[in-house]
Amino acid sequence: MGIIGKNKSALNEQEGIEQPDSLNNAAAQKLMQNRKKKQEVAQLFAGIKAGDKTALSRSITLIESTTQQHQKQAKELIALCLPFANKSQRIGITGVPGVGKSTFIEAFGKLLTSQGHKVAVLAVDPSSTVSKGSILGDKTRMEELVKDDHAFIRPSASGDALGGVARKTRETIILCEAAGFDTIIIETVGVGQSETTVHSMTDFFLLLKLAGAGDELQGIKRGIIEMADTIVINKADGENVKAAKLAKVEFNRALHLYPAKESQWTPKTVTCSALHNEGIQEVYELINDYILQTKKSDYFNHKRTEQNKFWLVQTIESQLKSDFFSNPKIKAALKKQLALIEEHKTTPFEAAEVLMKIN
Amino acid sequence: MGIIGKNKSALNEQEGIEQPDSLNNAAAQKLMQNRKKKQEVAQLFAGIKAGDKTALSRSITLIESTTQQHQKQAKELIALCLPFANKSQRIGITGVPGVGKSTFIEAFGKLLTSQGHKVAVLAVDPSSTVSKGSILGDKTRMEELVKDDHAFIRPSASGDALGGVARKTRETIILCEAAGFDTIIIETVGVGQSETTVHSMTDFFLLLKLAGAGDELQGIKRGIIEMADTIVINKADGENVKAAKLAKVEFNRALHLYPAKESQWTPKTVTCSALHNEGIQEVYELINDYILQTKKSDYFNHKRTEQNKFWLVQTIESQLKSDFFSNPKIKAALKKQLALIEEHKTTPFEAAEVLMKIN
Repeated sequence: MGIIGKNKSALNEQEGIEQPDSLNNAAAQKLMQNRKKKQEVAQLFAGIKAGDKTALSRSITLIESTTQQHQKQAKELIALCLPFANKSQRIGITGVPGVGKSTFIEAFGKLLTSQGHKVAVLAVDPSSTVSKGSILGDKTRMEELVKDDHAFIRPSASGDALGGVARKTRETIILCEAAGFDTIIIETVGVGQSETTVHSMTDFFLLLKLAGAGDELQGIKRGIIEMADTIVINKADGENVKAAKLAKVEFNRALHLYPAKESQWTPKTVTCSALHNEGIQEVYELINDYILQTKKSDYFNHKRTEQNKFWLVQTIESQLKSDFFSNPKIKAALKKQLALIEEHKTTPFEAAEVLMKIN
Repeated sequence: MGIIGKNKSALNEQEGIEQPDSLNNAAAQKLMQNRKKKQEVAQLFAGIKAGDKTALSRSITLIESTTQQHQKQAKELIALCLPFANKSQRIGITGVPGVGKSTFIEAFGKLLTSQGHKVAVLAVDPSSTVSKGSILGDKTRMEELVKDDHAFIRPSASGDALGGVARKTRETIILCEAAGFDTIIIETVGVGQSETTVHSMTDFFLLLKLAGAGDELQGIKRGIIEMADTIVINKADGENVKAAKLAKVEFNRALHLYPAKESQWTPKTVTCSALHNEGIQEVYELINDYILQTKKSDYFNHKRTEQNKFWLVQTIESQLKSDFFSNPKIKAALKKQLALIEEHKTTPFEAAEVLMKIN
């Protein structure tokens, strides 16, 4: 009882709560635990501020955890980090599997760190719950970057819905920025809506492509092209050089068919060979140009403000859903209603009404 | 006071409520109004059941209305219609502007009505709030179908979010089915997520394409191809015939690269000329084959059950959001928080927390 008793009185003093001597062990232990959790958060924050990658990793794990206690700690941590966030450039990179995303990010990341930047690589990949291998594979493929002191690579948050993954990624950006990473690269494998999600949290959007392969097979949609601030044709090496140059001309022509962007930036197509480290410098300069230009016109800040408004609404919507569906009463009732739908004994509308009344 | 007094006592009797003689006019009027609204719903329902297209149109307008009174009436109407719904075949049709969707639906719809079917054509087009012209244009283009007694054409519900449009369309399907329409065609112009939405509410998904034009420009994404139960290459006439046949071969080959569908159905590519009414019969037979096959394997019902489960969750999510954001207190606070974000005085997370506490 010694140490608990001691901490108990310290806590009482601290929080100004008068406690009878008969305070039972359970209550004291709970107070202890809360205190410990607060200490953990403070320690993680100190670690993040010192740029400690282990503390950063552990903090992101809290964000990704679904337990209430961890979520609470994650919230506190984010609140502590927020004043130190927002000071990076956020670059979105998309392209279908096989386009050489990992090789490109490795080469691009190394260039950035060699210029004194600190680079964090995150992934938005809602499918990773299904095929967990892919991103882990990416991580091991970025062999050099993973060993780089000034780089931090984090596989995609798992989650059954893109909304959840998006929120976690968005919060992870805050922590990485507070840890001093000035360049955040967010990659996506380009399934479903994930490009739009990545676009909504980045300053610059880069589309990686291959020359030659049909666009159909590359799964590139008109909307994605419209979002791109630059198209980078990768694997422009060996026999591919000619095809890549041709594709560059074609794309530059195609890009002119699109309406002018709000950013006043004219998207450009460049070729590169990530494998041979060629053309990476050009991409780097292009992004710098973009950031200079949009900061000058204030579009950079304008876009971030719009993104913040979007994220306010997204955060609320995601919270409303999670509050609702995590309610144990709802969980039980939902299971029952789903069974009734299966047996054709109710309709989605009637079932929804039943559930909404419980809330 | 005469008529109100009379109705008042009738209402009291009916509802078994004892009322003092001093019942004021306002309360009586409210009761009157409620009664009138109930009568309106009953009349609309009778009209729908009789297959009256004017009643159907007016009912859909209630679904699309944002006033609380109309929403309440719409809910009652849907509840009345539900037992008579679910008995149609629902066909989704997508394709980029210029592919000839209206001409195809006109030709296809006429064939269906000539075979004794009753056809309703709905549209999911979240962009219609921005460019209201497009669907209205479609409607006037489907000149013959619009005059057909056994066809009903309804432009897209307007709405600022795809979720809202989707819900309204889903509810409109119920009303159309109760009105005796046995084939529901839901078209989308193929922007963003709208194909996925249409796919989630239909039994059969048809992708219209053109031969020749690059897929990039047609904006067809891998995911859309994967959803398609058939690809119809339109405008296979005149000089295009050869290219269309070639495209058919290519697509049939490409379709083999995709994994087998859960439906066990092998998607087929066909060519047609909607303008010259050629190949439409083939599409019709293909859809019939699909429905026969999937009804036999029970996949048809299985898919609808899965769609119903999906719609249960969607309905709840949409209700949660609309309840939250339509709250006047939230509306005022949201405006304030958005202004604070604009002035960089808060973050999306802090703002969300403030708003969630009001709820």
